[in-house]
Amino acid sequence: MAATACLPSNTETPVPARLCAWSCALEVRAPGAMHFVDLTERLAACVARSGIEHGLVNLQCLHTSAALLLNENEPLLHEDFRALLERWAPRGAGWQHDRFDVRTVNLAPGERPNGHAHARALLLRSTECLNVVGGRLELGRWQRVFLVECDEARDRTVSVLVLGVARPCA
Amino acid sequence: MAATACLPSNTETPVPARLCAWSCALEVRAPGAMHFVDLTERLAACVARSGIEHGLVNLQCLHTSAALLLNENEPLLHEDFRALLERWAPRGAGWQHDRFDVRTVNLAPGERPNGHAHARALLLRSTECLNVVGGRLELGRWQRVFLVECDEARDRTVSVLVLGVARPCA
Amino acid sequence: MAATACLPSNTETPVPARLCAWSCALEVRAPGAMHFVDLTERLAACVARSGIEHGLVNLQCLHTSAALLLNENEPLLHEDFRALLERWAPRGAGWQHDRFDVRTVNLAPGERPNGHAHARALLLRSTECLNVVGGRLELGRWQRVFLVECDEARDRTVSVLVLGVARPCA
Repeated sequence: MAATACLPSNTETPVPARLCAWSCALEVRAPGAMHFVDLTERLAACVARSGIEHGLVNLQCLHTSAALLLNENEPLLHEDFRALLERWAPRGAGWQHDRFDVRTVNLAPGERPNGHAHARALLLRSTECLNVVGGRLELGRWQRVFLVECDEARDRTVSVLVLGVARPCA
Repeated sequence: MAATACLPSNTETPVPARLCAWSCALEVRAPGAMHFVDLTERLAACVARSGIEHGLVNLQCLHTSAALLLNENEPLLHEDFRALLERWAPRGAGWQHDRFDVRTVNLAPGERPNGHAHARALLLRSTECLNVVGGRLELGRWQRVFLVECDEARDRTVSVLVLGVARPCA
Repeated sequence: MAATACLPSNTETPVPARLCAWSCALEVRAPGAMHFVDLTERLAACVARSGIEHGLVNLQCLHTSAALLLNENEPLLHEDFRALLERWAPRGAGWQHDRFDVRTVNLAPGERPNGHAHARALLLRSTECLNVVGGRLELGRWQRVFLVECDEARDRTVSVLVLGVARPCA
């Protein structure tokens, strides 16, 4: 177990804490339904640009029919995941949310049947919080961060916020 | 991609970082099993009261048979979610956790069979971390934050912690 | 609702914010497949050692075939969870990820069939963010933090990062 010392320590000459909060919005559009879009490089670039050495980076998918996933980038595994999500929450399985004849709430122009997409998002995650250690996004050997498009191809936004201790100024 | 500048920058006159941590406990009681209680307004009020401009707000449901969900507030969709959770983790499906004749661990007075409720909580989330940007809780157009009562109507507590850069003092 | 006041407040004599980021890596090895390893005591020790009074502790499992879970430590309940995960994502169910004859990506020496383990990790969580209030890890009465080994016994690492307001120096 390796510990990183606190910054700043209250030594004789106190140094103002270099707290930093840095945010941006990643715009993403998957080519179609059930695509996994790898956001890892863009996310690592956010962390680098933030100047934060130790802290947290939180991702928030701003949609209710798309989701985030932290897992391996292996195409056959993604086929497995697609098959599982189709089995757990099948498209066209008579979702109440898609009964536009009886539904009265949140009906937007161009509404399409997507109850299955919400159900799949329920099984996955809308937010994912990762560690920043030594100025770098912490990731295991096989870990990659994906947006999973559970609906059709749509413009999506992932809000990114990096919070932590910034590098000392020159 | 719009970036928010770091606060404070080490200008000629260094300003102490206005780091702020603010916490509270939300008390919640659903009217019955499988109700979705919308916490969004109370959560937005927490963020406003914290005075934090940029940072994170973390919710932690302090229970193991209730959960948190970030999705749409549409009653028919909630019916879909209830049906899914009943299918994935049916009530009365012979849960080992409910065999009070053989179970020896964590038996509290008034223990009721709720193995299905734990299983549903396993599929949902106990914690949810959201971004705070420009003094406001970040939420997509359809995103709302719910406590999902997987057991019967019970007094529940959601711990809220807001951490970040506070507004400059007047 | 009980609120914790901001620290530091910009009083007449400004005090530098005692921001602290503290990180470590927990090494874990489960005795075998589908064991639940209780990390709660080690995690509470991390929070104590960090010296942080109010903030967040984020756990990140650095693997894609193991996961984190926040639930009850009751052996019969864990049997229920194992049975559910076996039903939702059965071992040896013809996972594409395990077709080493056609797979070309991320094949490491000693690769073993573990598509089911990735699928189970998909249903659980890779990260979990908890609150730190009054110098202590916030936990409900029955809440414990587990690493869930979805694959065989392997050396696993959980990255821990504590971020927040540190105790004032003496």
